[in-house]
Amino acid sequence: MHTCHFPALSEGVHALPPEEAAHVVRVLRMREGEKVRMIDGKGGVALGVLMSVDKRGASVEVSEVQREAIRPSGLTLVVSPTKHTDRFEWLLEKATELGVDALMPVWSSRSERRIDKHERWSKVVIAATKQCQRVWMPMLHQACALSKLFEMHPTLSSTSGAVAHCMEDVQSVPTRESWIEWQMDKPCAWLAIGPEGDFSEEEVQFLHEHGATPVHLGELRLRTETAGIAAAAQFMQGSGRQ
Amino acid sequence: MHTCHFPALSEGVHALPPEEAAHVVRVLRMREGEKVRMIDGKGGVALGVLMSVDKRGASVEVSEVQREAIRPSGLTLVVSPTKHTDRFEWLLEKATELGVDALMPVWSSRSERRIDKHERWSKVVIAATKQCQRVWMPMLHQACALSKLFEMHPTLSSTSGAVAHCMEDVQSVPTRESWIEWQMDKPCAWLAIGPEGDFSEEEVQFLHEHGATPVHLGELRLRTETAGIAAAAQFMQGSGRQ
Repeated sequence: MHTCHFPALSEGVHALPPEEAAHVVRVLRMREGEKVRMIDGKGGVALGVLMSVDKRGASVEVSEVQREAIRPSGLTLVVSPTKHTDRFEWLLEKATELGVDALMPVWSSRSERRIDKHERWSKVVIAATKQCQRVWMPMLHQACALSKLFEMHPTLSSTSGAVAHCMEDVQSVPTRESWIEWQMDKPCAWLAIGPEGDFSEEEVQFLHEHGATPVHLGELRLRTETAGIAAAAQFMQGSGRQ
Repeated sequence: MHTCHFPALSEGVHALPPEEAAHVVRVLRMREGEKVRMIDGKGGVALGVLMSVDKRGASVEVSEVQREAIRPSGLTLVVSPTKHTDRFEWLLEKATELGVDALMPVWSSRSERRIDKHERWSKVVIAATKQCQRVWMPMLHQACALSKLFEMHPTLSSTSGAVAHCMEDVQSVPTRESWIEWQMDKPCAWLAIGPEGDFSEEEVQFLHEHGATPVHLGELRLRTETAGIAAAAQFMQGSGRQ
Protein backbone atom coordinates (compact mmCIF):
# COMPACT_ATOMS: atom_id res chain seq x y z
CA MET A 1 0.00 0.00 0.00
CA HIS A 2 1.24 3.50 -0.83
CA THR A 3 2.30 5.63 2.15
CA CYS A 4 1.60 9.39 2.41
CA HIS A 5 3.43 11.68 4.80
CA PHE A 6 0.98 14.00 6.57
CA PRO A 7 2.56 15.86 9.51
CA ALA A 8 -0.75 16.99 11.11
CA LEU A 9 -2.36 13.57 11.07
CA SER A 10 -5.75 13.36 12.81
CA GLU A 11 -9.16 11.84 12.24
CA GLY A 12 -11.41 13.47 9.64
CA VAL A 13 -11.19 14.51 6.00
CA HIS A 14 -8.00 16.25 4.89
CA ALA A 15 -6.64 17.66 1.65
CA LEU A 16 -3.31 15.98 0.88
CA PRO A 17 -0.31 18.33 0.63
CA PRO A 18 0.43 19.24 -3.02
CA GLU A 19 3.42 16.91 -3.47
CA GLU A 20 1.64 13.92 -1.97
CA ALA A 21 -1.48 14.66 -4.02
CA ALA A 22 0.53 14.97 -7.24
CA HIS A 23 2.14 11.59 -6.60
CA VAL A 24 -1.16 9.88 -5.83
CA VAL A 25 -2.98 11.47 -8.77
CA ARG A 26 -0.39 11.70 -11.55
CA VAL A 27 2.19 9.03 -10.81
CA LEU A 28 0.09 6.30 -9.22
CA ARG A 29 -3.19 7.31 -10.93
CA MET A 30 -5.17 6.28 -7.87
CA ARG A 31 -8.98 6.62 -7.76
CA GLU A 32 -11.61 7.53 -5.20
CA GLY A 33 -12.18 4.74 -2.70
CA GLU A 34 -8.60 3.43 -2.84
CA LYS A 35 -6.65 3.12 0.40
CA VAL A 36 -3.40 4.74 1.45
CA ARG A 37 -1.26 4.37 4.54
CA MET A 38 -0.85 7.72 6.33
CA ILE A 39 2.08 8.54 8.66
CA ASP A 40 3.01 11.71 10.47
CA GLY A 41 6.62 10.61 11.07
CA LYS A 42 6.06 11.13 14.81
CA GLY A 43 4.64 7.74 15.75
CA GLY A 44 1.18 8.17 14.17
CA VAL A 45 -0.14 5.75 11.53
CA ALA A 46 -3.60 5.56 10.00
CA LEU A 47 -5.50 4.06 7.12
CA GLY A 48 -6.85 6.69 4.74
CA VAL A 49 -9.48 6.35 2.02
CA LEU A 50 -9.28 8.66 -1.00
CA MET A 51 -12.46 10.78 -1.06
CA SER A 52 -11.86 13.06 -4.03
CA VAL A 53 -9.17 12.84 -6.69
CA ASP A 54 -8.87 15.40 -9.46
CA LYS A 55 -6.31 17.55 -11.22
CA ARG A 56 -6.28 20.14 -8.46
CA GLY A 57 -5.57 17.70 -5.65
CA ALA A 58 -6.79 14.84 -3.54
CA SER A 59 -8.52 14.48 -0.19
CA VAL A 60 -8.46 11.57 2.15
CA GLU A 61 -10.64 10.40 5.03
CA VAL A 62 -8.82 9.18 8.12
CA SER A 63 -10.86 7.10 10.55
CA GLU A 64 -8.55 6.07 13.37
CA VAL A 65 -4.97 7.08 14.15
CA GLN A 66 -2.77 4.50 15.89
CA ARG A 67 0.02 6.00 17.99
CA GLU A 68 3.37 4.55 18.96
CA ALA A 69 3.93 6.90 21.85
CA ILE A 70 7.65 6.56 22.57
CA ARG A 71 10.29 7.45 20.00
CA PRO A 72 12.71 4.51 19.94
CA SER A 73 16.20 5.64 20.89
CA GLY A 74 19.05 4.25 18.91
CA LEU A 75 21.94 5.52 16.87
CA THR A 76 22.73 9.16 16.15
CA LEU A 77 25.08 9.76 13.24
CA VAL A 78 27.15 12.94 13.37
CA VAL A 79 28.48 13.15 9.82
CA SER A 80 30.36 15.60 7.66
CA PRO A 81 28.42 15.94 4.40
CA THR A 82 30.39 14.67 1.43
CA LYS A 83 31.62 16.97 -1.33
CA HIS A 84 29.15 15.42 -3.77
CA THR A 85 25.68 15.74 -2.31
CA ASP A 86 24.43 12.55 -4.00
CA ARG A 87 26.72 10.48 -1.78
CA PHE A 88 25.39 12.23 1.32
CA GLU A 89 21.82 11.77 0.13
CA TRP A 90 22.47 8.04 -0.27
CA LEU A 91 23.71 7.98 3.28
CA LEU A 92 20.55 9.75 4.47
CA GLU A 93 18.35 7.28 2.56
CA LYS A 94 20.20 4.18 3.75
CA ALA A 95 20.55 5.41 7.35
CA THR A 96 16.78 5.93 7.42
CA GLU A 97 16.15 2.42 6.09
CA LEU A 98 18.59 0.99 8.66
CA GLY A 99 16.77 2.56 11.59
CA VAL A 100 19.11 5.44 12.50
CA ASP A 101 17.41 7.71 15.02
CA ALA A 102 19.02 11.09 14.32
CA LEU A 103 21.32 12.67 11.75
CA MET A 104 23.50 15.66 12.55
CA PRO A 105 25.45 17.14 9.63
CA VAL A 106 28.63 18.89 10.85
CA TRP A 107 31.22 20.99 9.09
CA SER A 108 34.75 19.99 9.97
CA SER A 109 38.03 21.59 8.96
CA ARG A 110 38.36 19.40 5.83
CA SER A 111 34.71 19.76 4.74
CA GLU A 112 34.58 21.16 1.22
CA ARG A 113 31.24 22.65 0.10
CA ARG A 114 29.51 23.90 3.25
CA ILE A 115 25.93 24.24 2.09
CA ASP A 116 23.19 22.92 4.36
CA LYS A 117 20.64 21.58 1.87
CA HIS A 118 18.25 20.98 4.73
CA GLU A 119 15.04 21.12 2.74
CA ARG A 120 16.30 18.83 -0.03
CA TRP A 121 17.83 16.43 2.50
CA SER A 122 14.55 16.37 4.48
CA LYS A 123 12.74 15.19 1.37
CA VAL A 124 15.18 12.29 1.03
CA VAL A 125 14.55 11.30 4.64
CA ILE A 126 10.77 11.54 4.23
CA ALA A 127 10.81 9.45 1.04
CA ALA A 128 12.95 6.76 2.67
CA THR A 129 10.76 6.74 5.80
CA LYS A 130 7.69 6.11 3.64
CA GLN A 131 9.43 3.43 1.59
CA CYS A 132 10.80 1.38 4.49
CA GLN A 133 7.62 1.68 6.57
CA ARG A 134 9.12 3.33 9.61
CA VAL A 135 6.65 4.91 12.01
CA TRP A 136 9.09 7.40 13.50
CA MET A 137 11.06 9.48 11.06
CA PRO A 138 14.73 10.08 11.94
CA MET A 139 15.44 13.59 13.16
CA LEU A 140 17.48 15.48 10.58
CA HIS A 141 19.10 18.42 12.34
CA GLN A 142 20.38 21.65 10.83
CA ALA A 143 24.06 21.50 9.92
CA CYS A 144 26.47 23.15 12.36
CA ALA A 145 30.21 23.58 12.81
CA LEU A 146 31.80 20.67 14.65
CA SER A 147 33.06 23.15 17.26
CA LYS A 148 29.43 24.07 18.10
CA LEU A 149 28.17 20.46 18.23
CA PHE A 150 27.94 20.11 22.01
CA GLU A 151 26.43 23.57 22.46
CA MET A 152 23.77 22.81 19.86
CA HIS A 153 23.11 19.30 21.17
CA PRO A 154 23.87 19.18 24.91
CA THR A 155 22.23 15.73 25.27
CA LEU A 156 25.17 14.21 23.36
CA SER A 157 27.36 14.79 26.41
CA SER A 158 25.25 12.38 28.46
CA THR A 159 25.09 9.66 25.77
CA SER A 160 27.79 7.13 24.88
CA GLY A 161 29.66 8.47 21.87
CA ALA A 162 32.39 7.39 19.49
CA VAL A 163 34.51 8.95 16.76
CA ALA A 164 35.61 6.92 13.74
CA HIS A 165 38.91 7.99 12.23
CA CYS A 166 41.65 6.47 10.08
CA MET A 167 44.81 7.59 11.91
CA GLU A 168 47.10 5.08 13.57
CA ASP A 169 47.86 7.35 16.50
CA VAL A 170 46.49 10.63 17.75
CA GLN A 171 48.31 12.38 20.59
CA SER A 172 46.60 12.19 24.00
CA VAL A 173 43.81 10.01 22.60
CA PRO A 174 43.53 6.23 23.22
CA THR A 175 44.10 3.71 20.41
CA ARG A 176 41.00 2.95 18.38
CA GLU A 177 38.71 0.16 19.47
CA SER A 178 36.53 -1.89 17.14
CA TRP A 179 33.17 -0.10 16.61
CA ILE A 180 31.53 -3.52 16.28
CA GLU A 181 32.70 -4.53 19.76
CA TRP A 182 32.24 -1.13 21.35
CA GLN A 183 28.62 -0.57 20.33
CA MET A 184 27.45 -4.06 21.20
CA ASP A 185 26.21 -3.29 24.73
CA LYS A 186 24.99 0.29 24.13
CA PRO A 187 21.22 0.74 23.87
CA CYS A 188 21.80 4.15 22.34
CA ALA A 189 24.92 5.90 21.12
CA TRP A 190 26.27 8.52 18.76
CA LEU A 191 29.04 8.12 16.23
CA ALA A 192 30.98 10.91 14.51
CA ILE A 193 32.26 10.26 10.98
CA GLY A 194 34.59 12.66 9.24
CA PRO A 195 34.70 14.01 5.69
CA GLU A 196 36.81 12.82 2.75
CA GLY A 197 40.33 13.26 4.12
CA ASP A 198 39.23 12.40 7.69
CA PHE A 199 38.91 14.52 10.81
CA SER A 200 42.02 16.43 11.83
CA GLU A 201 43.95 15.35 14.92
CA GLU A 202 42.57 18.38 16.79
CA GLU A 203 39.01 17.39 15.91
CA VAL A 204 39.52 13.85 17.18
CA GLN A 205 41.02 15.32 20.39
CA PHE A 206 38.05 17.70 20.71
CA LEU A 207 35.52 14.87 20.30
CA HIS A 208 37.45 12.70 22.73
CA GLU A 209 37.45 15.50 25.31
CA HIS A 210 33.66 15.50 24.94
CA GLY A 211 33.42 11.81 25.70
CA ALA A 212 33.87 10.11 22.33
CA THR A 213 35.71 6.79 22.25
CA PRO A 214 37.99 6.50 19.20
CA VAL A 215 36.91 3.57 17.01
CA HIS A 216 37.72 1.95 13.66
CA LEU A 217 35.38 0.24 11.24
CA GLY A 218 37.70 -2.52 10.04
CA GLU A 219 40.83 -2.72 7.94
CA LEU A 220 39.63 -1.31 4.65
CA ARG A 221 39.43 2.41 3.90
CA LEU A 222 35.75 3.27 3.74
CA ARG A 223 34.25 6.31 2.11
CA THR A 224 32.32 8.64 4.44
CA GLU A 225 28.91 7.39 3.31
CA THR A 226 29.98 3.73 3.41
CA ALA A 227 31.24 4.19 6.97
CA GLY A 228 27.88 5.63 8.01
CA ILE A 229 25.86 2.87 6.36
CA ALA A 230 28.11 0.10 7.70
CA ALA A 231 28.05 1.51 11.24
CA ALA A 232 24.25 1.72 11.14
CA ALA A 233 23.88 -1.85 9.84
CA GLN A 234 26.24 -3.12 12.52
CA PHE A 235 24.39 -1.19 15.21
CA MET A 236 21.28 -3.28 14.39
CA GLN A 237 23.20 -6.20 15.83
CA GLY A 238 23.35 -5.12 19.48
CA SER A 239 21.40 -7.20 21.92
CA GLY A 240 17.65 -6.76 21.69
CA ARG A 241 17.82 -4.28 18.81
CA GLN A 242 16.53 -6.48 16.02
CA MET B 1 49.31 7.25 -2.60
CA HIS B 2 47.43 6.70 -5.84
CA THR B 3 46.68 3.08 -6.75
CA CYS B 4 46.85 1.73 -10.32
CA HIS B 5 45.23 -1.53 -11.39
CA PHE B 6 47.60 -3.59 -13.53
CA PRO B 7 46.39 -7.16 -14.10
CA ALA B 8 49.73 -8.53 -15.37
CA LEU B 9 51.82 -7.15 -12.51
CA SER B 10 55.48 -8.21 -12.52
CA GLU B 11 58.88 -6.69 -11.95
CA GLY B 12 60.29 -4.48 -14.70
CA VAL B 13 59.19 -1.43 -16.69
CA HIS B 14 55.60 -1.44 -17.98
CA ALA B 15 53.40 0.94 -19.96
CA LEU B 16 50.29 1.72 -17.93
CA PRO B 17 46.98 0.76 -19.58
CA PRO B 18 45.39 3.78 -21.35
CA GLU B 19 42.75 4.50 -18.67
CA GLU B 20 45.24 4.32 -15.82
CA ALA B 21 47.71 6.46 -17.75
CA ALA B 22 45.05 9.08 -18.55
CA HIS B 23 44.14 9.33 -14.88
CA VAL B 24 47.76 9.67 -13.75
CA VAL B 25 48.67 12.17 -16.48
CA ARG B 26 45.55 14.30 -16.97
CA VAL B 27 43.62 14.11 -13.71
CA LEU B 28 46.40 13.81 -11.13
CA ARG B 29 49.07 15.55 -13.27
CA MET B 30 51.76 13.32 -11.82
CA ARG B 31 55.39 13.68 -12.89
CA GLU B 32 58.35 11.38 -13.54
CA GLY B 33 59.84 10.03 -10.31
CA GLU B 34 56.54 10.06 -8.39
CA LYS B 35 55.36 6.86 -6.76
CA VAL B 36 52.19 4.86 -7.28
CA ARG B 37 50.80 1.75 -5.59
CA MET B 38 50.26 -1.05 -8.12
CA ILE B 39 47.80 -3.91 -7.60
CA ASP B 40 46.78 -6.78 -9.85
CA GLY B 41 43.56 -7.51 -7.91
CA LYS B 42 44.78 -11.08 -7.38
CA GLY B 43 46.86 -10.65 -4.26
CA GLY B 44 49.81 -8.81 -5.82
CA VAL B 45 50.93 -5.36 -4.63
CA ALA B 46 53.98 -3.36 -5.62
CA LEU B 47 55.47 0.08 -5.44
CA GLY B 48 55.90 1.67 -8.86
CA VAL B 49 57.95 4.69 -9.88
CA LEU B 50 56.80 6.74 -12.89
CA MET B 51 59.54 6.58 -15.54
CA SER B 52 58.01 8.51 -18.41
CA VAL B 53 54.91 10.67 -18.43
CA ASP B 54 53.66 12.38 -21.56
CA LYS B 55 50.51 12.97 -23.55
CA ARG B 56 50.62 9.54 -25.15
CA GLY B 57 50.88 7.58 -21.91
CA ALA B 58 52.96 6.72 -18.88
CA SER B 59 55.35 3.96 -17.93
CA VAL B 60 56.21 2.73 -14.51
CA GLU B 61 59.08 0.73 -13.02
CA VAL B 62 58.12 -2.01 -10.61
CA SER B 63 60.89 -3.32 -8.39
CA GLU B 64 59.39 -5.96 -6.11
CA VAL B 65 55.93 -7.54 -6.10
CA GLN B 66 54.54 -8.64 -2.72
CA ARG B 67 52.06 -11.51 -2.93
CA GLU B 68 49.23 -12.41 -0.59
CA ALA B 69 48.92 -15.97 -1.86
CA ILE B 70 45.54 -17.07 -0.55
CA ARG B 71 42.31 -15.35 -1.58
CA PRO B 72 40.41 -14.70 1.65
CA SER B 73 37.06 -16.47 1.59
CA GLY B 74 34.11 -14.57 2.87
CA LEU B 75 30.71 -13.51 1.70
CA THR B 76 29.28 -14.15 -1.76
CA LEU B 77 26.30 -11.96 -2.68
CA VAL B 78 23.85 -13.43 -5.19
CA VAL B 79 21.80 -10.36 -6.14
CA SER B 80 19.17 -9.42 -8.67
CA PRO B 81 20.34 -6.19 -10.34
CA THR B 82 18.01 -3.30 -9.61
CA LYS B 83 15.91 -1.66 -12.31
CA HIS B 84 18.04 1.49 -12.07
CA THR B 85 21.64 0.54 -12.67
CA ASP B 86 22.97 3.34 -10.44
CA ARG B 87 21.52 1.60 -7.37
CA PHE B 88 23.18 -1.66 -8.38
CA GLU B 89 26.46 0.12 -9.04
CA TRP B 90 26.31 1.60 -5.55
CA LEU B 91 25.85 -1.88 -4.18
CA LEU B 92 28.90 -3.08 -6.15
CA GLU B 93 30.98 -0.17 -4.85
CA LYS B 94 29.91 -0.56 -1.23
CA ALA B 95 30.12 -4.38 -1.26
CA THR B 96 33.70 -4.05 -2.49
CA GLU B 97 34.55 -1.57 0.27
CA LEU B 98 32.96 -3.86 2.85
CA GLY B 99 35.08 -6.85 1.86
CA VAL B 100 32.56 -8.98 -0.08
CA ASP B 101 34.38 -11.81 -1.82
CA ALA B 102 32.18 -12.51 -4.85
CA LEU B 103 29.20 -10.94 -6.61
CA MET B 104 26.81 -13.00 -8.72
CA PRO B 105 24.10 -11.03 -10.55
CA VAL B 106 21.03 -13.20 -11.17
CA TRP B 107 17.83 -12.62 -13.12
CA SER B 108 14.75 -13.64 -11.20
CA SER B 109 11.13 -13.70 -12.31
CA ARG B 110 10.50 -10.13 -11.12
CA SER B 111 13.74 -8.68 -12.50
CA GLU B 112 12.93 -5.83 -14.85
CA ARG B 113 15.71 -4.78 -17.26
CA ARG B 114 17.85 -7.87 -17.88
CA ILE B 115 21.02 -6.35 -19.27
CA ASP B 116 24.34 -7.65 -17.96
CA LYS B 117 26.49 -4.50 -17.94
CA HIS B 118 29.49 -6.62 -17.04
CA GLU B 119 32.15 -4.33 -18.41
CA ARG B 120 30.71 -1.21 -16.82
CA TRP B 121 30.12 -3.01 -13.52
CA SER B 122 33.69 -4.36 -13.58
CA LYS B 123 34.98 -0.80 -13.75
CA VAL B 124 32.98 0.10 -10.64
CA VAL B 125 34.49 -2.86 -8.79
CA ILE B 126 38.03 -2.00 -9.91
CA ALA B 127 37.65 1.65 -8.88
CA ALA B 128 36.31 0.68 -5.45
CA THR B 129 39.08 -1.91 -4.98
CA LYS B 130 41.69 0.76 -5.65
CA GLN B 131 39.98 3.29 -3.40
CA CYS B 132 39.57 1.04 -0.35
CA GLN B 133 43.03 -0.53 -0.67
CA ARG B 134 41.96 -4.13 -1.01
CA VAL B 135 44.59 -6.51 -2.30
CA TRP B 136 42.15 -9.08 -3.69
CA MET B 137 39.44 -7.75 -5.93
CA PRO B 138 35.99 -9.31 -5.48
CA MET B 139 35.03 -11.70 -8.27
CA LEU B 140 32.25 -10.20 -10.35
CA HIS B 141 30.60 -13.03 -12.26
CA GLN B 142 28.57 -12.85 -15.45
CA ALA B 143 24.85 -12.51 -14.80
CA CYS B 144 22.77 -15.69 -15.16
CA ALA B 145 19.19 -16.80 -14.67
CA LEU B 146 18.46 -17.80 -11.08
CA SER B 147 17.41 -21.24 -12.37
CA LYS B 148 20.95 -21.77 -13.73
CA LEU B 149 22.74 -20.54 -10.60
CA PHE B 150 23.79 -23.93 -9.21
CA GLU B 151 24.83 -25.25 -12.63
CA MET B 152 26.95 -22.17 -13.22
CA HIS B 153 28.39 -22.15 -9.68
CA PRO B 154 28.46 -25.72 -8.33
CA THR B 155 30.62 -24.70 -5.36
CA LEU B 156 27.62 -22.86 -3.88
CA SER B 157 26.03 -26.22 -3.06
CA SER B 158 28.86 -27.07 -0.67
CA THR B 159 28.88 -23.64 1.06
CA SER B 160 26.46 -22.39 3.72
CA GLY B 161 23.83 -20.29 1.98
CA ALA B 162 20.86 -18.12 2.86
CA VAL B 163 18.03 -16.39 1.06
CA ALA B 164 16.64 -13.06 2.31
CA HIS B 165 12.98 -12.50 1.52
CA CYS B 166 10.12 -10.40 2.89
CA MET B 167 7.26 -12.93 3.04
CA GLU B 168 5.78 -14.01 6.34
CA ASP B 169 5.30 -17.60 5.22
CA VAL B 170 6.38 -19.63 2.23
CA GLN B 171 4.96 -23.11 1.82
CA SER B 172 7.36 -26.00 2.61
CA VAL B 173 10.08 -23.55 3.67
CA PRO B 174 11.04 -22.86 7.32
CA THR B 175 10.28 -19.52 8.97
CA ARG B 176 12.97 -16.91 8.45
CA GLU B 177 15.85 -16.68 10.92
CA SER B 178 17.77 -13.52 11.69
CA TRP B 179 20.64 -13.11 9.18
CA ILE B 180 22.66 -11.46 11.93
CA GLU B 181 22.40 -14.54 14.12
CA TRP B 182 22.66 -17.08 11.33
CA GLN B 183 25.87 -15.78 9.77
CA MET B 184 27.71 -15.26 13.04
CA ASP B 185 29.51 -18.64 13.10
CA LYS B 186 30.03 -19.05 9.32
CA PRO B 187 33.56 -18.40 8.06
CA CYS B 188 32.17 -18.16 4.54
CA ALA B 189 28.65 -18.06 3.20
CA TRP B 190 26.46 -16.88 0.33
CA LEU B 191 23.34 -14.79 0.53
CA ALA B 192 20.69 -14.39 -2.17
CA ILE B 193 18.82 -11.07 -2.32
CA GLY B 194 15.85 -10.57 -4.61
CA PRO B 195 14.81 -7.71 -6.86
CA GLU B 196 12.35 -4.89 -6.17
CA GLY B 197 9.17 -6.83 -5.45
CA ASP B 198 11.08 -9.70 -3.84
CA PHE B 199 11.72 -13.27 -4.98
CA SER B 200 8.62 -15.30 -5.83
CA GLU B 201 7.56 -18.13 -3.52
CA GLU B 202 8.82 -20.66 -6.09
CA GLU B 203 12.23 -18.99 -6.17
CA VAL B 204 12.52 -19.11 -2.37
CA GLN B 205 11.53 -22.79 -2.50
CA PHE B 206 14.10 -23.43 -5.25
CA LEU B 207 16.88 -21.75 -3.26
CA HIS B 208 15.86 -23.60 -0.11
CA GLU B 209 15.97 -26.93 -1.97
CA HIS B 210 19.55 -26.02 -2.88
CA GLY B 211 20.48 -25.51 0.74
CA ALA B 212 19.60 -21.87 1.45
CA THR B 213 18.32 -20.99 4.91
CA PRO B 214 15.53 -18.37 4.77
CA VAL B 215 16.57 -15.22 6.64
CA HIS B 216 15.34 -11.71 7.35
CA LEU B 217 17.36 -8.54 7.76
CA GLY B 218 15.27 -6.87 10.48
CA GLU B 219 11.85 -5.32 10.69
CA LEU B 220 12.10 -2.52 8.17
CA ARG B 221 11.60 -3.02 4.43
CA LEU B 222 15.01 -2.58 2.82
CA ARG B 223 15.67 -1.80 -0.81
CA THR B 224 17.66 -4.46 -2.69
CA GLU B 225 20.91 -2.50 -2.56
CA THR B 226 20.45 -1.55 1.10
CA ALA B 227 19.89 -5.21 1.97
CA GLY B 228 23.14 -6.15 0.23
CA ILE B 229 25.16 -3.41 1.91
CA ALA B 230 23.67 -4.11 5.36
CA ALA B 231 24.25 -7.85 5.05
CA ALA B 232 27.87 -7.26 4.04
CA ALA B 233 28.50 -4.85 6.93
CA GLN B 234 26.95 -7.28 9.38
CA PHE B 235 29.01 -10.16 7.98
CA MET B 236 32.16 -8.25 9.05
CA GLN B 237 31.02 -8.93 12.58
CA GLY B 238 31.47 -12.72 12.66
CA SER B 239 34.18 -14.04 14.94
CA GLY B 240 37.68 -13.38 13.70
CA ARG B 241 36.55 -11.54 10.60
CA GLN B 242 37.57 -8.02 11.59
